[in-house]
Amino acid sequence: MLQDTLAALRKQAPLIHCITNYVTANDCANLLLACGASPVMADDPAEAAEIAAQSQGLLLNLGTLNQCTIPAMLAAGRQANALGLPVVLDPVGAGASRLRSETAAMLLSELRFAAIRGNSSEIKALATGSSATRGVDAALSDQAPEDALGFAQEASRRWGAVVALTGPIDIVAHGTQACLIQNGHPMMGRVTGTGCQLSALTAAFLAANPGAPLEAVSAAVCAMGLCGEIAHRRLGRLEGNIAYRGRIIDALYRLTPERLAAGAKARFLPPQST
Amino acid sequence: MLQDTLAALRKQAPLIHCITNYVTANDCANLLLACGASPVMADDPAEAAEIAAQSQGLLLNLGTLNQCTIPAMLAAGRQANALGLPVVLDPVGAGASRLRSETAAMLLSELRFAAIRGNSSEIKALATGSSATRGVDAALSDQAPEDALGFAQEASRRWGAVVALTGPIDIVAHGTQACLIQNGHPMMGRVTGTGCQLSALTAAFLAANPGAPLEAVSAAVCAMGLCGEIAHRRLGRLEGNIAYRGRIIDALYRLTPERLAAGAKARFLPPQST
Amino acid sequence: MLQDTLAALRKQAPLIHCITNYVTANDCANLLLACGASPVMADDPAEAAEIAAQSQGLLLNLGTLNQCTIPAMLAAGRQANALGLPVVLDPVGAGASRLRSETAAMLLSELRFAAIRGNSSEIKALATGSSATRGVDAALSDQAPEDALGFAQEASRRWGAVVALTGPIDIVAHGTQACLIQNGHPMMGRVTGTGCQLSALTAAFLAANPGAPLEAVSAAVCAMGLCGEIAHRRLGRLEGNIAYRGRIIDALYRLTPERLAAGAKARFLPPQST
Repeated sequence: MLQDTLAALRKQAPLIHCITNYVTANDCANLLLACGASPVMADDPAEAAEIAAQSQGLLLNLGTLNQCTIPAMLAAGRQANALGLPVVLDPVGAGASRLRSETAAMLLSELRFAAIRGNSSEIKALATGSSATRGVDAALSDQAPEDALGFAQEASRRWGAVVALTGPIDIVAHGTQACLIQNGHPMMGRVTGTGCQLSALTAAFLAANPGAPLEAVSAAVCAMGLCGEIAHRRLGRLEGNIAYRGRIIDALYRLTPERLAAGAKARFLPPQST
Repeated sequence: MLQDTLAALRKQAPLIHCITNYVTANDCANLLLACGASPVMADDPAEAAEIAAQSQGLLLNLGTLNQCTIPAMLAAGRQANALGLPVVLDPVGAGASRLRSETAAMLLSELRFAAIRGNSSEIKALATGSSATRGVDAALSDQAPEDALGFAQEASRRWGAVVALTGPIDIVAHGTQACLIQNGHPMMGRVTGTGCQLSALTAAFLAANPGAPLEAVSAAVCAMGLCGEIAHRRLGRLEGNIAYRGRIIDALYRLTPERLAAGAKARFLPPQST
Repeated sequence: MLQDTLAALRKQAPLIHCITNYVTANDCANLLLACGASPVMADDPAEAAEIAAQSQGLLLNLGTLNQCTIPAMLAAGRQANALGLPVVLDPVGAGASRLRSETAAMLLSELRFAAIRGNSSEIKALATGSSATRGVDAALSDQAPEDALGFAQEASRRWGAVVALTGPIDIVAHGTQACLIQNGHPMMGRVTGTGCQLSALTAAFLAANPGAPLEAVSAAVCAMGLCGEIAHRRLGRLEGNIAYRGRIIDALYRLTPERLAAGAKARFLPPQST
């Protein structure tokens, strides 16, 4: 199942419109090329809708949001919604400032998202308005896994979107369904933008697998984590986070559907009554 | 001949002012340092002309153009024109939005370019206003090479600029003259920004070789493609597009004039009557 | 002493708010993660003060300053000053345009900096208003070391900040005290952003060592230069500036306090009467 989603992505080569932060834009672009998709970055409000209309998926990442890119996100998102294209939200640093919290709330109110990908503090900030974010590379783990699962499913139902809550155990929730994923390596937290990259990858998987959103997002999470594992095994003892960053994306470039299926540590849970 | 242009570039170490997209700005800066030039990135309208005046060449790249950087491009371009510095246009994504098409048309109308570097869909969009761009990493190859040559030469005469139309076979046209280049490797399309990097390299070669624009642009195209070939031969079987990206720029860092002359697959055509 | 500052940095893992240029933002973020700190990049005026308030240090880098980020720098700097957080200024390209010179002067007038890090042409431009900058990767060496030392100490006293004047010999001055550092490798000038990275590292060292500013800044300068030396020894003969860039940051990732102490070529001078 997971391997089919990667095969579809490689075959369809979707064009993903990214309105994303300048810190990790290059990594996201190369990651999209590594997985078989193509990137287009365009964030001026005057062209955002037009670019979205030529794409097969849209990523909105709040990393370095500003007064110019926020209206571009809205315009691109509305166009993508009108055309039925999947839109992914990465609420980087949500809760860390009023601008981020209000922008995230505005986007959630105005747009339909296919998926929302963040760490637990970011997703919580979206859901509750509380502020507990520590930078953009940090993760909170202040609740038991079963509580996090219920929280993610509730958020998914509320927003009508797949919610990917990433942490030591990744939770992908879609309504009453969910998948728990244990791929990944702690050193990924020492590379800037692995979360941004996963969100871009999520948009690519969704664009190529419109009928299977839970599987598509789960496959993206598994693939990113598995590449983090593969890359870590290849890391020399003198190498650090820059070598690791490159090896993760290179592993994705070489990842086959079969390898993904064999390496994925995903457990799909039976649907739960609410 | 080609080797002389690289020797001149290494000797003169021109400072290249880049108004370029944030996705590949770091790659362009390191590529300029690799070839022997120096980069300066500055895109606020309030300083663009001043920075241009201290440079030996100017690159205008439309990749992530916005309402702030467009007037900066115009101001820098006018200053560079007034001082006789070479200006290179990379019309990234031209045809993909009205903003890009109109900005490109405005710049072509207001400025004199030494060279324009794009894929065939971008150059066609500039010439005809038609829209056939698919993202920024795609290339159209919908015409026979001889037609593309005639098209590039016509565009060159119209704009008074060297036109570098890159694709499976690269065409560098200057009025009635032209050069066909077959360096490169298809995997370069899986690295974001190799086109942007080539445009930056073009500006550097032009700045160091003011009297030989066709040779300078051809040398840049050959050098970039040759480095793509060298880098691909060095690529390990587990490596992907990130390793490849680095090896391309590293190959340029180590490229000697002799190696360029030996590896260039360039054919200068006899001047054609129009 | 120097090793203690790195041990403190690794232990405290400060969050560093960076308002910096888009060219090297990714490198700065990964460098901060490599040294044990965490980055947060946020440059909209509407959130700059809030983000600064959640950080332990602030970096203001003028590399690609614009009309939006200048007020963000001021707002973040005032908040950091109010909270007693260390603020580092990297006056990239100061002297190269009126916008840069005036912005630097405004920031020096409105804010208290813990440290100012630049090459001699940039620091001179700040101190005298003269313009002698050639791009952002160039360095001027038009004065004898003893003159440069006196100049740096005078600038330090004038601004009430540690001044790190980097060049063939790096000078770190704090009032009547100073440290001369001879780590580094000339090839670092062929990698874009090594100066930006050093400024980010300086902010991290200062944030973790509030009571020892001269030692903290000196340790940052030694660490960056030492990593440049280590990385150069590991460079293969076919590798260029991209491989070198990665190896520098990777060396920092692996740098131990003991290794720093053993490799630092720092000479602390006895305090001088003024």
